[in-house]
Amino acid sequence: MNVRVDWRASCSLVGTVVKWLAVAMVFPLALAVFYGEGVVTFLASMALAVGIGWSLERLDDDPDLGAREGFLMVALTWLVVSFVGASPYVIAGQGTVGQPVNALFESMSGFTTTGATVMGSIGFERHSRALMMWRQQTQWLGGMGIVVLAVAILPELSVGGAQLMDAEAPGPGIQKLTPRIAETARALWGIYFAITVLEMVLLYSLHLADLAPNMTLYNAVAHALTTMPTGGFSPAARSIEAFSAAVQWLIIPFMVAAGTNFALFWHLLNGDFDTFREDTEFRFYASVLAVFSGLVAILLFTGGTPELTAVGPLSGNAEKALRHAVFQVVSLVTTTGYASMDFAQWGTPAQYVLFVMLFVGGSAGSTGGAVKIVRWLVVLKSLKRELFTTVHPEAVRPVRLGDRALDERAVRGIYAFTLLYLVIFFVAAMLVYFDAARTGLDLVALDAMSAVAATLGNVGPGFGIVGPMESYLRFPRTSKLFMVFLMWIGRLEILPVLVLLTPAYWQS
Amino acid sequence: MNVRVDWRASCSLVGTVVKWLAVAMVFPLALAVFYGEGVVTFLASMALAVGIGWSLERLDDDPDLGAREGFLMVALTWLVVSFVGASPYVIAGQGTVGQPVNALFESMSGFTTTGATVMGSIGFERHSRALMMWRQQTQWLGGMGIVVLAVAILPELSVGGAQLMDAEAPGPGIQKLTPRIAETARALWGIYFAITVLEMVLLYSLHLADLAPNMTLYNAVAHALTTMPTGGFSPAARSIEAFSAAVQWLIIPFMVAAGTNFALFWHLLNGDFDTFREDTEFRFYASVLAVFSGLVAILLFTGGTPELTAVGPLSGNAEKALRHAVFQVVSLVTTTGYASMDFAQWGTPAQYVLFVMLFVGGSAGSTGGAVKIVRWLVVLKSLKRELFTTVHPEAVRPVRLGDRALDERAVRGIYAFTLLYLVIFFVAAMLVYFDAARTGLDLVALDAMSAVAATLGNVGPGFGIVGPMESYLRFPRTSKLFMVFLMWIGRLEILPVLVLLTPAYWQS
Ligand SMILES: [K+]
Ligand SMILES: [K+]
Repeated sequence: MNVRVDWRASCSLVGTVVKWLAVAMVFPLALAVFYGEGVVTFLASMALAVGIGWSLERLDDDPDLGAREGFLMVALTWLVVSFVGASPYVIAGQGTVGQPVNALFESMSGFTTTGATVMGSIGFERHSRALMMWRQQTQWLGGMGIVVLAVAILPELSVGGAQLMDAEAPGPGIQKLTPRIAETARALWGIYFAITVLEMVLLYSLHLADLAPNMTLYNAVAHALTTMPTGGFSPAARSIEAFSAAVQWLIIPFMVAAGTNFALFWHLLNGDFDTFREDTEFRFYASVLAVFSGLVAILLFTGGTPELTAVGPLSGNAEKALRHAVFQVVSLVTTTGYASMDFAQWGTPAQYVLFVMLFVGGSAGSTGGAVKIVRWLVVLKSLKRELFTTVHPEAVRPVRLGDRALDERAVRGIYAFTLLYLVIFFVAAMLVYFDAARTGLDLVALDAMSAVAATLGNVGPGFGIVGPMESYLRFPRTSKLFMVFLMWIGRLEILPVLVLLTPAYWQS
Repeated sequence: MNVRVDWRASCSLVGTVVKWLAVAMVFPLALAVFYGEGVVTFLASMALAVGIGWSLERLDDDPDLGAREGFLMVALTWLVVSFVGASPYVIAGQGTVGQPVNALFESMSGFTTTGATVMGSIGFERHSRALMMWRQQTQWLGGMGIVVLAVAILPELSVGGAQLMDAEAPGPGIQKLTPRIAETARALWGIYFAITVLEMVLLYSLHLADLAPNMTLYNAVAHALTTMPTGGFSPAARSIEAFSAAVQWLIIPFMVAAGTNFALFWHLLNGDFDTFREDTEFRFYASVLAVFSGLVAILLFTGGTPELTAVGPLSGNAEKALRHAVFQVVSLVTTTGYASMDFAQWGTPAQYVLFVMLFVGGSAGSTGGAVKIVRWLVVLKSLKRELFTTVHPEAVRPVRLGDRALDERAVRGIYAFTLLYLVIFFVAAMLVYFDAARTGLDLVALDAMSAVAATLGNVGPGFGIVGPMESYLRFPRTSKLFMVFLMWIGRLEILPVLVLLTPAYWQS
């Protein structure tokens, strides 16, 4: 076979990224020193990262990437980084996550900002503070990766209508990562970093103002690191339920921000409020959040939910019903995955709304996953157009997004992506059920369906055995590895991984 | 508003169809006489049909249909026929189905060949034999309507890629219903009639051969009338579970035939075996049936199912596991909806497979509903093409079906239809949950989801409270009316009804 792909170039760049993991591990290492926990875990992991990274870099001294090498690099980066990032869990050997498959699951869940966990019990008595911080940090690093992916890589690869993800005009191709794109990426990283710091400061301020007794500095850092990447890992066993109402209200706007196109914040910083206000996608995103929060709030307020001892009754309590409704809708639409209470105990109607929310996803150019709201917007607009052309078959009417007329190829790409996503969902859930039947694991309807939707969409928690207060631990290893695959392809917008499986990709 | 649609012409043709309902009622009337049951029900209903039909016909003495009038006629025909066809239930006033909303539900379920029932208890002690036969006959008549719709009307209206449904080259437009199309429709009706008679004869032969003690002549006619339209109404309370294994095995090939493009039988009759064997859609259809039957059979054989007293244990019994697996997969894929046992009691993995099957649908040019298998085939082929063009963005590669290269507009129409179908499914299930919450009806996950999938897809039974041995009776009236709407739009391939709701349709 005549392989035309310069895989050495791709691997070499992956090596560079992996080497930087060692630098990132300085933070948990410092924490380990500070808390007097063992330092071997992170020193050994750093050595591993440098060793693997250096070896991969050796494959090509002057890597030059075309589009095909771009697909391979993107896919391999998340895969190799997740393998190397799993080493601290394995080396530390604390709890269920010390088992290699579990460690890989937790690591991929981190770097893809999914937030699905296989930790049997969460708490510092079982896992060191440094290891838990590494878990949070993988999400923050993954979020940085998504920013580059969304603004610089996927639009150039024209994946599933990802052209739309680029707020600016498309560049000349990934092989020439232009100064403009690099500059954009740096600007967006700046925004990402600044909002993270802002959230950390505000969370800790609540603590200092006696409004959040257990929002310690450690917790403030941990949650700031997992909000902006729409990650959702929390060092608290009961997620955000463990914190005060003030904390819950404060986290909501940060989750909304994390699911917003970061380019809009850039315009905002430049004093351009109109672009923000008039952005078609943002308006749709805000409407979806408002409408579904309202519907869920009504369901909770009118008592479609059993009384939950942990948080007290919701029915008849307007503030509580509204808070938990808004929190959960925002958390799942943005694909963050935090829980302000055990929403898997809600009544079926409210659960079903949240289940549908697992498919919505954040904005283009955000760290949110799933289908992404801009694609749904284009799908709905195209369906409306289809109704029109059914009556007027002769009419040629482009689909418009704001003042842009979309190219038919982009529309087709978005139709294809959305259907591919749903087809994968239906088939993947079937495979998880088969695996459960094979191993004697008893699942009910939403168990596997929500587990697949929540991993493919990088959301994290689902319903039933994968509810927000449960974990993915009980799935057989085969299912866990399969979900590692789902998190991986879901995060990379599916196509960059799937094309690697086609002969056309490898041949000339 | 300047209405450009000649609605009088549409209504006039609907009137002609409705008048024929009176002729169709001669059959149940004759049965009523034969069994000594009351004849008032059908005499009054016949008078109603003639009266309404005649009044509608008066609106336009020389109706001339364009495409827009075609949409209106198609949509109104099923609606008005269902209203008039509900009159025997209301006038007879026997059981739950005597209530007007229930009667409309049962009638729409019949004419759309859905087979969802609101009869609280099924049996001749509650409903007369004549009324039950009318129920079966509505499906057979509905199936005749679908044949015309599929071969003559939808392809001309270019609805959601329905061009593909036409086995021949597209005609010059519905306004000139050509002799060729009329001839095709007549030929397909002939096939439909002939296979119905064949099934009836074979079912009754089993009875005469002592292989089916309770397959009386009445039952043979009843089941022949509901198999070919993929209807699924049975006069037996426990559907096909009530009959012997021989009956169950015999019905399977007839359900397969009902879900096959009838044009293929036409080729077969003309001695053209190759067209049948080489038909891309038929091969895909046969593969889907084989693969999923096999998977379900394995699940049942290896014991993923509780022991059901009614039919005895399936695990370890190869014939039983295979029979029920094949029967249910064929029944749901073809959207017939018969049950050989209570599949809503199976283990979750097997139930989930059947749940996904609710979306597949029969072949183009068959009486099957749901998305239809040819659309899934085109979707899968287009997704494969999308993978190819992701790697080769410069390539122009048409999607092929057999030796035809599909027009991009047809591909786009199919993408749009499939997504529209899924979007309607997700939203409709949410509305059913809200309605349940409003009225205090307790639903679990698959209840509303499968109820919506089974009515929109014209399948009939689902899971949980709408399982095959249950009914749709417990839903609030608002939900029932909503499901009447779902059956209606699902049967007409959605777009002909939805376009009526757009201003563009009514204006010039
Ligand atoms: K997440
Ligand atoms: K049916």
